Amino acid sequence: MRMYDILIKKRNGGALSDAEIRFLVKGFTEGRIPDYQMASFLMAVWFRGMTKEETVSLTLAMAESGGKLDLSGIKGIKVDKHSTGGVGDKTTLIIGPILASLQVPVAKMSGRGLGHTGGTIDKLESIPGFCTSIATDVFIRNVNQIHFALAGQTADLAPADKKIYALRDVTGTVDSDALIASSIMSKKIASGADAIVLDVKCGTGGFMKTPAEAERLAELMVEIGRLAGRKTVAVISDMNEPLGRMVGNSLEVVEAVEILSGAGDGRLRELCIQLAAEMLLLSGRLGGEEEKDQRKQAVDMVTDAIVSRRALHKFAEFVEAQGGDPDYIRNPDRFEKASYVVPVPAVKSGRLTACDAEEVGMTSLILGAGRSRKDEAVDFSAGIELRKKLGDTVQEGETMAYLYTNRKDVIPEAISRFQKAYTIENREFEPEKVIKKIIS
Amino acid sequence: MRMYDILIKKRNGGALSDAEIRFLVKGFTEGRIPDYQMASFLMAVWFRGMTKEETVSLTLAMAESGGKLDLSGIKGIKVDKHSTGGVGDKTTLIIGPILASLQVPVAKMSGRGLGHTGGTIDKLESIPGFCTSIATDVFIRNVNQIHFALAGQTADLAPADKKIYALRDVTGTVDSDALIASSIMSKKIASGADAIVLDVKCGTGGFMKTPAEAERLAELMVEIGRLAGRKTVAVISDMNEPLGRMVGNSLEVVEAVEILSGAGDGRLRELCIQLAAEMLLLSGRLGGEEEKDQRKQAVDMVTDAIVSRRALHKFAEFVEAQGGDPDYIRNPDRFEKASYVVPVPAVKSGRLTACDAEEVGMTSLILGAGRSRKDEAVDFSAGIELRKKLGDTVQEGETMAYLYTNRKDVIPEAISRFQKAYTIENREFEPEKVIKKIIS
Repeated sequence: MRMYDILIKKRNGGALSDAEIRFLVKGFTEGRIPDYQMASFLMAVWFRGMTKEETVSLTLAMAESGGKLDLSGIKGIKVDKHSTGGVGDKTTLIIGPILASLQVPVAKMSGRGLGHTGGTIDKLESIPGFCTSIATDVFIRNVNQIHFALAGQTADLAPADKKIYALRDVTGTVDSDALIASSIMSKKIASGADAIVLDVKCGTGGFMKTPAEAERLAELMVEIGRLAGRKTVAVISDMNEPLGRMVGNSLEVVEAVEILSGAGDGRLRELCIQLAAEMLLLSGRLGGEEEKDQRKQAVDMVTDAIVSRRALHKFAEFVEAQGGDPDYIRNPDRFEKASYVVPVPAVKSGRLTACDAEEVGMTSLILGAGRSRKDEAVDFSAGIELRKKLGDTVQEGETMAYLYTNRKDVIPEAISRFQKAYTIENREFEPEKVIKKIIS
Repeated sequence: MRMYDILIKKRNGGALSDAEIRFLVKGFTEGRIPDYQMASFLMAVWFRGMTKEETVSLTLAMAESGGKLDLSGIKGIKVDKHSTGGVGDKTTLIIGPILASLQVPVAKMSGRGLGHTGGTIDKLESIPGFCTSIATDVFIRNVNQIHFALAGQTADLAPADKKIYALRDVTGTVDSDALIASSIMSKKIASGADAIVLDVKCGTGGFMKTPAEAERLAELMVEIGRLAGRKTVAVISDMNEPLGRMVGNSLEVVEAVEILSGAGDGRLRELCIQLAAEMLLLSGRLGGEEEKDQRKQAVDMVTDAIVSRRALHKFAEFVEAQGGDPDYIRNPDRFEKASYVVPVPAVKSGRLTACDAEEVGMTSLILGAGRSRKDEAVDFSAGIELRKKLGDTVQEGETMAYLYTNRKDVIPEAISRFQKAYTIENREFEPEKVIKKIIS
């Protein structure tokens, strides 16, 4: 088998065999296939696409390219959740405690990554003492004892995906359905998930901009999951504005606590309940009723976990188990505030009818909440508090949001960017539903 | 300007500006743009193509990427010829002496390359003493004094083309019209040609298999030449069987002498006369008649150069000027014969109706005439003498060809390969004309 022949076959529109894809992934990961042949191959895939079968082969080959996390010590069906990424997405902080309080084991591997805010790991590390680099045996023990543990992704998980992604990033081959889907699914499979709930974001702040793109990707991933023997459900959710009211690291922990206290943003709560319910369904803990009844039962159980505050207590228990100070969960006022909390006035009166959520994210990044280079530090207290959401009306000069930052010099640019991210018009407007579709 | 943006623009079907293409070529040649980004870009070009304007920019950027041969010391318009490559193509050995005998300066840079036989340089080096690594001043002096000199291509000529070609070769991006045309034309322009005659081969032994492909490439190159200020004419010639009757190195010198003596294969003679006439026309030496009359006059002058034997004498003079023994031209019997001269019998009776010329070339290669690796030595005496051509009839067991080799062990395979390369049928068959079209 030769890489050159595989390359020509794909270039000419052929479908590769499982053996060819495994040869390719193994050869590239182990350094026998040079970057330039892989780059050329990836561009051919960008143009020709891949069949579902090819995509499954690619997913599994990447999933098996490194060590797999051995989660066999954890009892029960392990359900994982993955979000395709958006602005203000703190769902993991809310869903993890909910499911754990329902005795569903949540063994979560999370990334730090680049972005408008830090990743879930950075958000949790904004809680003093919280440690995400825990040993595997502690991780497994915690899942078995309190049903929730979260650790940083180890470098050895799906190294082929890591290496291929780095090349895609610099060769213009990121936005290919087959490559996106296999990248996401390979990591989930490698991290030992038995079942997967995907939160596919769709809109100005999501990787997928249109419902059609999001649905296509969601369907492909659900199909890969099915063919790879992992029950997979995809929730397509709206990302035409930041999720919830907080964008930042400790700010998002505070908002998670708010939701788990039964208050907070309705759309965020709705999405968290739905995602948690889907995970609960996949965990196989519900009885033998009809699917529709099961879903209602799941939603009820999840809602009860919030209303009863069991999930909130679980959050504090989880934080403490990983070295964090649980008092920050009980009294979120203890989080250190940024030096500057700056109101952003509306530039005119009217209704918020559109938001470039990506730009709100960029505002958060320049305030200090995110990182654009891997080695950058994140400012836990920086971020944005939204006071107006799509569909709300504002008066000229009224505060739309508060910017939180320790960088005085970026404030003027941040205000201007934030203001430009919103469209204010004098017309009726109904924001889209937060949950657009569920694909299973 | 960033390579990444250029890559995305091309991938999305955009046309690059001259500045973008120059940035790309310069950056890659000087090592700032990595192989993997160039590989990805080339694959995008394979799918999207390039406009004529882009192809001209690419051609000129590559032509100007290294030193240019300074041929200003040569008087008159320098006309160069390029063949896209075929089996048994010894036209340069015949045309050079013809034009030189008509006082048209022929300053020829030639390659050694890989192939079924050696390149023109190997063929000439089969003449004892002949030297192709002559200094530039000697080269120019020879062209001015005897009107013909031939040297190996210097490494510094169009280094961008060399580097890009090497990458195309291993990334499945060779067969792209824009990339082929710019590669050929950049080398011709860098080597100082004022006008260019292209011999675009078409058929089983050519790079272009169909007349449509050959015409498309020819038209593109003629257009590039026009836009780059070089008069360019393309002759599309048949390559559905080897050109002439000899395939090899010294064997082809012997055949060139035969043609220059007024004898030899009719199709080979016809093509050489036409190519030489086109070059003579471009040299601007003919009077102010109508184009049609000029062409007739050019053909007459070329024919007379052969019939008068002035071209043959020029060949001997040229060989002597570069250190070769001219007696081999006057007495070609002096060339050393291969140890084994093996007849190939026809496997059945009938008419030769098709030939896989590429396979005849491969037979020649395994006999020792060519090289498949750059460092391989060529056996000057090895090759094939064709006794039957397309359209001829054979009896079963009749000799179709003689194989010349010093490798006893390859003879059975060579015989079998050669036999399989031909189709013998009992039907009428008229071979295609050797000259299919002239595009100017």
